[in-house]
Amino acid sequence: MLAEIITIGDEILIGQVIDTNSAWMGQKLNEIGIAVKQITSISDHQEAILNGLTEALQHADIILITGGLGPTKDDITKHTLCKFFGAELVLNEDALENVKQIFARFNRPLIDVNIKQAEVPDNCVVIQNKNGTAPGMWFEYNGKIVVSMPGVPFEMMGMMEDYVLPALKKRFDVDNILHKTIITAGLGESFLAKEIEDIEDALPANIKLAYLPKLGQVRLRLSAIGTNKNLLLEQVENFSSQITARIPNHIIALEDISIQEAILKRLTENGLKLATAESCTGGYMAHLFTSIPGSSLAYVGGAVSYSNTLKQQMLGVKSQTLEQFGAVSEETVKEMALGALKNYGADYSIACSGIAGPDGGTEEKPVGTVWVAVANKHKVLAKKFQFGNKRMQNIERTAINGFYFLWRLMKGIE
Amino acid sequence: MLAEIITIGDEILIGQVIDTNSAWMGQKLNEIGIAVKQITSISDHQEAILNGLTEALQHADIILITGGLGPTKDDITKHTLCKFFGAELVLNEDALENVKQIFARFNRPLIDVNIKQAEVPDNCVVIQNKNGTAPGMWFEYNGKIVVSMPGVPFEMMGMMEDYVLPALKKRFDVDNILHKTIITAGLGESFLAKEIEDIEDALPANIKLAYLPKLGQVRLRLSAIGTNKNLLLEQVENFSSQITARIPNHIIALEDISIQEAILKRLTENGLKLATAESCTGGYMAHLFTSIPGSSLAYVGGAVSYSNTLKQQMLGVKSQTLEQFGAVSEETVKEMALGALKNYGADYSIACSGIAGPDGGTEEKPVGTVWVAVANKHKVLAKKFQFGNKRMQNIERTAINGFYFLWRLMKGIE
Repeated sequence: MLAEIITIGDEILIGQVIDTNSAWMGQKLNEIGIAVKQITSISDHQEAILNGLTEALQHADIILITGGLGPTKDDITKHTLCKFFGAELVLNEDALENVKQIFARFNRPLIDVNIKQAEVPDNCVVIQNKNGTAPGMWFEYNGKIVVSMPGVPFEMMGMMEDYVLPALKKRFDVDNILHKTIITAGLGESFLAKEIEDIEDALPANIKLAYLPKLGQVRLRLSAIGTNKNLLLEQVENFSSQITARIPNHIIALEDISIQEAILKRLTENGLKLATAESCTGGYMAHLFTSIPGSSLAYVGGAVSYSNTLKQQMLGVKSQTLEQFGAVSEETVKEMALGALKNYGADYSIACSGIAGPDGGTEEKPVGTVWVAVANKHKVLAKKFQFGNKRMQNIERTAINGFYFLWRLMKGIE
Repeated sequence: MLAEIITIGDEILIGQVIDTNSAWMGQKLNEIGIAVKQITSISDHQEAILNGLTEALQHADIILITGGLGPTKDDITKHTLCKFFGAELVLNEDALENVKQIFARFNRPLIDVNIKQAEVPDNCVVIQNKNGTAPGMWFEYNGKIVVSMPGVPFEMMGMMEDYVLPALKKRFDVDNILHKTIITAGLGESFLAKEIEDIEDALPANIKLAYLPKLGQVRLRLSAIGTNKNLLLEQVENFSSQITARIPNHIIALEDISIQEAILKRLTENGLKLATAESCTGGYMAHLFTSIPGSSLAYVGGAVSYSNTLKQQMLGVKSQTLEQFGAVSEETVKEMALGALKNYGADYSIACSGIAGPDGGTEEKPVGTVWVAVANKHKVLAKKFQFGNKRMQNIERTAINGFYFLWRLMKGIE
């Protein structure tokens, strides 16, 4: 069973917003065995929507559309769907009740455009919106399904989880698709491929291996398709074990989790605490840790010591260290890590200081120069990285490479 | 002149990675007056690529393809393009030299699959890759242009900036597209629309207004198309001024910058310093500030005081305050803001404490309960928010709503 996702909105095409809805929908559809054939982003012009829908109906059996259902004049999806399906708009009482309740909750008067949001084409099944005012619409068309939902992520997610996914699952009896992801770090894509070449060559036709490189990590994804779920599971586990046995020191996790999640999991299991001391990443490491539910079990907190004054005050870095070696140095970053360990009562700490850019580089320490230190009660290790001149990339690379450095300390890998 | 972007890779369709390349490319193309008609994501199967390319050539004059150029077996774009354009692969000496240099720089031996990356179809113009091993390819086909680039973002960006964008700009003499974005906060989409309805109704046919709501903010985008750039500029400025005059207290910026960028800009201009004190946002506020180049001019740093112990130790929150009112309370969050102001030598501070979820809520303080405080030398203000039960959303909403609260304090808006 094949699906196509259509996202509507000029803001996507001109790059003002990044389409995150499609990735989420793709994941959820895959989980119930529906493969996404194509994701298409088009403009909110009637002609583009009509063409996009016509083409999608040639590719796929299930078309999920998001966007263009808001109350303002640039939202034309509903009218265009009426035209495509030869429908008239009628007021839906349940949708109106929902709009009224939302406005009552926020103590706001109901205005005309909001009432109009409760109007729907007369030949669709209405999907109520628990998180917003625009209802969703489910059309049946020549044996195919077309669903239109709002573009606001949590409104779309609510409808998918409450209605669309269960309904699709019930309707279609599909093949199983099984994915297993292995997170590796410290080996480039081509070296990793070379290391496991014979394992990859021995994969049967129904199992595919994909390499997903990302900033010092490569995610390996085994995808198996077939009718017998247990057999697929067994096949995938077999190949996953072979890969793991080949490169044991580079395996971070055998599930699709981030390296920071793997770190927190291991710390939590061992009742250990972690603190951060960040200069150039400016809170990004802390953010990556605290994005994970339950992170407070292992992560106590940390310093964003952006200025030199705060490096001394928050972490106890000595002023002579800063004077003699500079803020971006092995000595400073080690003192930062040890300061965080001590001041914040942690068992492990990670610290960094670097020149994120685009300005601030010198000949001796160009933009992209970064020192990272990791510490526990027995050891403090520091490492220098030389990244490029793109600020956001430098921040991300510092965090991810720093986490791998911490992971090695935690696992005792030299 | 219309372009279509095709991104290739199963990882996009199954939602394992979010396609961020397209948004960046869309922005850059727009800046040189090329409109993106469609963005299409397809699987790395030969048939899907051939179909996708065939359909794209019906929609657009310029097709930009990313992905599927890596060294591993799942990367089939190059071979598929050979088939489509009836070409043979030949070794490109410059590309090989580039691969060799990259491997030499990292002190790694060159293996066979890496040499193969220097092979290119014999009928394309080769685009050298300064940031990686896979070269790009520029094909001319029935008066249309097809460009294939790697999917790794900074490799694609390098090729676009160095070669593709300048070449497209030179080739096409296009209409001007002018965008102006107005950032508003504190007014919902439909209320904002109602407030400026008459201004919107008076827009000429060549100017479009779009509403882009996002977590407590609405970005308004005026887009004008025409041949006379000065006239367009004048038209857009005229309507922008009308909107600004109508809702002065809700205007954050008259350019497409974030609210945190607007805050830092204002602080820097006035020589003022900012500090953060975060509990539930766990470093996200600091990260948003420090993502901005030059942020160190106004942002000194802050505490990620995740545990109660660190709230006391880093920010001087009193233990009796925590005992009597709890960590998520007006009293605690005010002490956090004042502590950051004093300890970190800042002129303004922002603090938050809340229950991000998914667990940790109580009947009195359910998941999504958040207190934010903002302070300067004369005043400390606190505000309670009740968000939903999604962790990442709660973190984002706390930051953005908190920033708007800080903005109002800075501007003296009651």
